[in-house]
Amino acid sequence: MKKVDVLIVGGSASGFAAAFTARRHYPDASIAVIRQEDKTPIPCGIPYIFGTLGSPEKNLMPDGALDKNGVELIKDEVTAINREKKTIITASGQEIGYEKMILGTGSLPLVPPIPGADLDNVFVMKKDVSYLSHLLEILKSTQDVVIIGGGFIGLEMADECHKLGCQNITVVEMLSHCLFTVFDEDLCIRLENELKKVNIQVQTSQKVKSLVGNGKVEYVELDDGRQLKADAVILGIGVYPNVAVGQQAGLTIGPTSAIVVDRHMLTNDSNIFAVGDCAEKVSFFTGQPVKAWLASVATAEARIAAANLFEMRRTNKGAVSVFSTKIGNIASGLAGIRETDARETGIAYVIGEAEAPDRHPGSLPGATKLRVKLVFHKYSGVLIGGQVCGGDSVGELVNLLAAMIQAEMNADQIATFQMGTHPLLTASPVAYQVVNAAEVALGKMC
Amino acid sequence: MKKVDVLIVGGSASGFAAAFTARRHYPDASIAVIRQEDKTPIPCGIPYIFGTLGSPEKNLMPDGALDKNGVELIKDEVTAINREKKTIITASGQEIGYEKMILGTGSLPLVPPIPGADLDNVFVMKKDVSYLSHLLEILKSTQDVVIIGGGFIGLEMADECHKLGCQNITVVEMLSHCLFTVFDEDLCIRLENELKKVNIQVQTSQKVKSLVGNGKVEYVELDDGRQLKADAVILGIGVYPNVAVGQQAGLTIGPTSAIVVDRHMLTNDSNIFAVGDCAEKVSFFTGQPVKAWLASVATAEARIAAANLFEMRRTNKGAVSVFSTKIGNIASGLAGIRETDARETGIAYVIGEAEAPDRHPGSLPGATKLRVKLVFHKYSGVLIGGQVCGGDSVGELVNLLAAMIQAEMNADQIATFQMGTHPLLTASPVAYQVVNAAEVALGKMC
Repeated sequence: MKKVDVLIVGGSASGFAAAFTARRHYPDASIAVIRQEDKTPIPCGIPYIFGTLGSPEKNLMPDGALDKNGVELIKDEVTAINREKKTIITASGQEIGYEKMILGTGSLPLVPPIPGADLDNVFVMKKDVSYLSHLLEILKSTQDVVIIGGGFIGLEMADECHKLGCQNITVVEMLSHCLFTVFDEDLCIRLENELKKVNIQVQTSQKVKSLVGNGKVEYVELDDGRQLKADAVILGIGVYPNVAVGQQAGLTIGPTSAIVVDRHMLTNDSNIFAVGDCAEKVSFFTGQPVKAWLASVATAEARIAAANLFEMRRTNKGAVSVFSTKIGNIASGLAGIRETDARETGIAYVIGEAEAPDRHPGSLPGATKLRVKLVFHKYSGVLIGGQVCGGDSVGELVNLLAAMIQAEMNADQIATFQMGTHPLLTASPVAYQVVNAAEVALGKMC
Repeated sequence: MKKVDVLIVGGSASGFAAAFTARRHYPDASIAVIRQEDKTPIPCGIPYIFGTLGSPEKNLMPDGALDKNGVELIKDEVTAINREKKTIITASGQEIGYEKMILGTGSLPLVPPIPGADLDNVFVMKKDVSYLSHLLEILKSTQDVVIIGGGFIGLEMADECHKLGCQNITVVEMLSHCLFTVFDEDLCIRLENELKKVNIQVQTSQKVKSLVGNGKVEYVELDDGRQLKADAVILGIGVYPNVAVGQQAGLTIGPTSAIVVDRHMLTNDSNIFAVGDCAEKVSFFTGQPVKAWLASVATAEARIAAANLFEMRRTNKGAVSVFSTKIGNIASGLAGIRETDARETGIAYVIGEAEAPDRHPGSLPGATKLRVKLVFHKYSGVLIGGQVCGGDSVGELVNLLAAMIQAEMNADQIATFQMGTHPLLTASPVAYQVVNAAEVALGKMC
């Protein structure tokens, strides 16, 4: 029987990060990644296959890096875990022994219980190359696309369908705004307007009654009776943790339907860790279970679990939730808690906002207004959240906020933060948004 | 006699930041900024007047913001301070009383003692609109430009002269590389090559013997005897603190020729603060005097001094030195200490480096290799420096490093940092350079 020191189940973002970290921390261990896909798409890159990259083959996890790090890649499906024997059984009938296991089986796209969801040309965001190739071929010859779900995936897909040349694109969102669960309302509205600018239709506060067609989908019927013509429908309403194998093996499942882990990322089996979308997360701020299904959270967890394989070296402080997106020409991002979350949780908070061009002077070509909104804990003054909206610098700016949150910097420390600035790259040092937003918030604390 | 609660001397970056902060912290105070210039150029934006903006008028400090904040702008020159009477005398003969004063008189360009430096068409980077207008006119009709000094200003000017259409541009640098005092050698070489790509000539390890011409400069003679044809010469060899008025009034001058201040930014006069290039700085890392003449350091100091005007609210932990630049298509930046500095100071350090595309997958249009080099204190594991080189995201990425340094985050905390990533905006969460560089460094610490 084949046996490895470390078996990592799943070959997406968390699997890769776990493999590389395990190799760094335990140079002599035999490490294998087992996954069922022949090739794995880079998860967050999937929308960009359609309008920008032009092929799923251009959006693949770089398997060569596993080999380079002395990590074996086994292409097979784990069908069962025998925790007593410390082995797994695969679809091809192999039995493989492990000393330690990291489960990174990810998530699966939710298919809503809508009549007609099984019609042809109704798609979900499956992490499967041939499925995505098929979707690309269909979209290439499609004019009328309806996207159900106005979250990140939905809006990014709408944007990419537009780039691909689809003429009649509609996003249908159940809540009163797209991205309503991730950004404060003002930012949601700004991003909806960005879609409308390129004639993408946005239907909010709308439920889908059914998908209708004869074999192939033909239109989407809304609750209010309207019918939207649809040659293709994309379901982007979310994901759920893929825990089947772990659950079957008796790993404890928590309130978010994910595998329960402790601060070392250990499950109720002391030889099995779980990371990423299949592992339950608690909030960095409240300690309560939270659905933070982000590749960046997954890789941070993977780096903790893999360091802890044979000795507990790292602890998880909980998910901060940091993300960014780009819709049209506007990039936006969030680190930590929104004002909406703070209010709903009953946290005593103070807001500081600042806006300025992201270059200086603002007349420089390419300058974009960059808005920063910070949420501070009212009594400690500690930063607990930040939202940004502007040009491409948002991608790393939201990470600056993430660092300030994780280091628990307070408003006064941020107001005197020593940043670097450059005319072509940032706001001026006088107008620097993060610092000024902190000053504004301080004024409300005194 | 006119009297104000707060008199801010100098109307550049630190003067503006001081004025706005004073207004926020002391809403009822009467505040005035006094400066000798009618209009003040944005200091870091000056090089971009020439090739990008096309006019000094497009690069001005926004005076309107002073008025909007209830800050009076007095256009006059301070010729003397009477500390006993707490008044100043101006060039126009006015006497103005103050309760508290913040000196932000900045720095002046160094003119090296080279024969011929007084010839026509030899320029320094003067913060003066009409002087810069004249330089722009000259450069527009000039083919042969010699820039003396391969620091930021020199290289940015070379790049802009190229954009303006000057055909024969040479940068002469005394040290063995351009930017040799600010970046580690590998990065200096990369940036020199970026200039050479567009046929800007770079002459390193070269001293200038004299500037030669008849009334107007005609050529630059190097120490090795070579002569470089020059219709215009730009001196970008540095600045020195402008302390004349303060020194005359008996303020103590320190080893860097700047006004000595304590951690509250207070001079030896308990009613006079000094900030920015005219104020002495100590290093965040060593506590030793350091020449950190950056607008971003100046504004951070201004925000400390102005909060402290009538009550000590903030302390200065010393200059971290954070900056970025863009030469050709490469942006680069530094926060804190370089490897060179650590070695020369005798600090026990460990380096971690990582490189990856700044988008994911790397095949996305516009993706650029982004390299991160981190310097950690070897025994505490605390981050003390970071250098980055890549695309425009460098501008805020260097600020992420600056926050990690100021929060004294260690390599383990950075290796498990929860960042946000997006295909169009950052590296992938697996390849994220800052985190991987920390992991690499950790491997060398154990």
